[in-house]
Amino acid sequence: MSAPSRLSLNQETIKQWSLPELAAGCAEAGVTGVGLWREPVQKYGVAATAELVRGTGLTVTSLCRGGFFTAIEPEARATALADNRRAIDEAAILGTDTLVLVSGGLPAGSRDLFAARERIADALGELAPYAADHGVRLAIEPLHPMYASDRCVVSTLAQALDLAERFPAEQVGVCVDTYHVWWDDTVAAQIARAGAGGRIAAFQLADWITPLPEGVLLGRGQLGDGSVDFRWFRERVDATGYTGPIEVEIFNPDLWARDGAEVLAEVADRYRTLVL
Amino acid sequence: MSAPSRLSLNQETIKQWSLPELAAGCAEAGVTGVGLWREPVQKYGVAATAELVRGTGLTVTSLCRGGFFTAIEPEARATALADNRRAIDEAAILGTDTLVLVSGGLPAGSRDLFAARERIADALGELAPYAADHGVRLAIEPLHPMYASDRCVVSTLAQALDLAERFPAEQVGVCVDTYHVWWDDTVAAQIARAGAGGRIAAFQLADWITPLPEGVLLGRGQLGDGSVDFRWFRERVDATGYTGPIEVEIFNPDLWARDGAEVLAEVADRYRTLVL
Repeated sequence: MSAPSRLSLNQETIKQWSLPELAAGCAEAGVTGVGLWREPVQKYGVAATAELVRGTGLTVTSLCRGGFFTAIEPEARATALADNRRAIDEAAILGTDTLVLVSGGLPAGSRDLFAARERIADALGELAPYAADHGVRLAIEPLHPMYASDRCVVSTLAQALDLAERFPAEQVGVCVDTYHVWWDDTVAAQIARAGAGGRIAAFQLADWITPLPEGVLLGRGQLGDGSVDFRWFRERVDATGYTGPIEVEIFNPDLWARDGAEVLAEVADRYRTLVL
Repeated sequence: MSAPSRLSLNQETIKQWSLPELAAGCAEAGVTGVGLWREPVQKYGVAATAELVRGTGLTVTSLCRGGFFTAIEPEARATALADNRRAIDEAAILGTDTLVLVSGGLPAGSRDLFAARERIADALGELAPYAADHGVRLAIEPLHPMYASDRCVVSTLAQALDLAERFPAEQVGVCVDTYHVWWDDTVAAQIARAGAGGRIAAFQLADWITPLPEGVLLGRGQLGDGSVDFRWFRERVDATGYTGPIEVEIFNPDLWARDGAEVLAEVADRYRTLVL
């Protein structure tokens, strides 16, 4: 049985796999898209990764992640921008058109969310044309409000769109990740807004489960194990005309402790049952 | 030096204190308001607590908490309503006009946030007149979205107001707690909306600190230790004409391990520096 056609596997979901294992595992399961992360790609080599995925017929649906734009000091800011240009270069080499952005939290000692968001807009203004020149679109990912202080001051799809809409749609879009926005009663309207503007650059799935672990980073749930109504989301995203990949991105040590092929089969099975 | 006049101490902030210690400690520090919790009050006796606080000249600024309205089964629902009527009775005996509500999360197996919110509205419809008859106003507290599945499907001040505004303002208001709403870029507008409608029933302070502990319940920060701009909030709440108590409610084992009088002095000091 081949995997559902739009299903893409974000590599962090099965991070126990090396890149060659990921490529082979996806080929074996009939999964044709993967979302990649910069650190393992850099370790394996960006060009080597590009060759590997091309050789397996895989499409890189997104690269995670650029961002962390909120530093105040000019030097830290320049470093962040330079790193984001490298991320764009890497995305281009990998042949993906989407660089997912985690925009950054509050700098140490700052309590000014509004100023931090403006610095993100400034950074986007500098990076978006560079990204466009490389065939890459920046995808602002709103992160769950529990990450607002230390990872991302962009907490809702509405905020992400407020930022994205300052730039051309072909340069800056948004990433709709169910884990981050499932709780928001305005999310249906914001998905419609994003779709109408051609701003949906990525669509990612993970379930919300509790209790949250210390640090709240690695507590995402396998599809179906938690509170998210995936079909509800998929129908609303599809209704806007979005026909792109649907990436499963779960950070969970329980999944990482299991056999990768078994996890991928489970992901595909849950996807068929709960998403389609 | 007497404490700032509007400062109220929620008893959970110094939960190492018994109720007599709380009353004595507040009198000693010149704090004239306390927020109480049902469990310790029931243990000490509701009438005995009322007598104790009256004898010390303390005002009970709020009682925590009613709520948990989202059960689907008729029996669980009836049990919840009966418990909330008891909470209203207790509030009346304690002489407070404010019962804070934690409205409830998703029932086991449910993924329907919208239906859960409607069940909250139904419960409010049943309870609000009873509360009003007892001189008590229900205060819907939006909880941080990280509690949406297991504690409260009301995650933003906008949602809380959408619910409250279905009822008369003297019956149902909202609780503005900085810990829960600090990240929200629409919160200034929603505070103005709440104030214009006479809906601000309680105003509570705690700081946002990271990393969050496992379960994310007991990780609130002492004022000034985290990301919240308290003066910003106080100014916006005051600008609506709100002149009521400002309650400090921090759940943090580090504070509970310290001498209560020392913690209260620190709270008052931080309040003077950061809130006024």
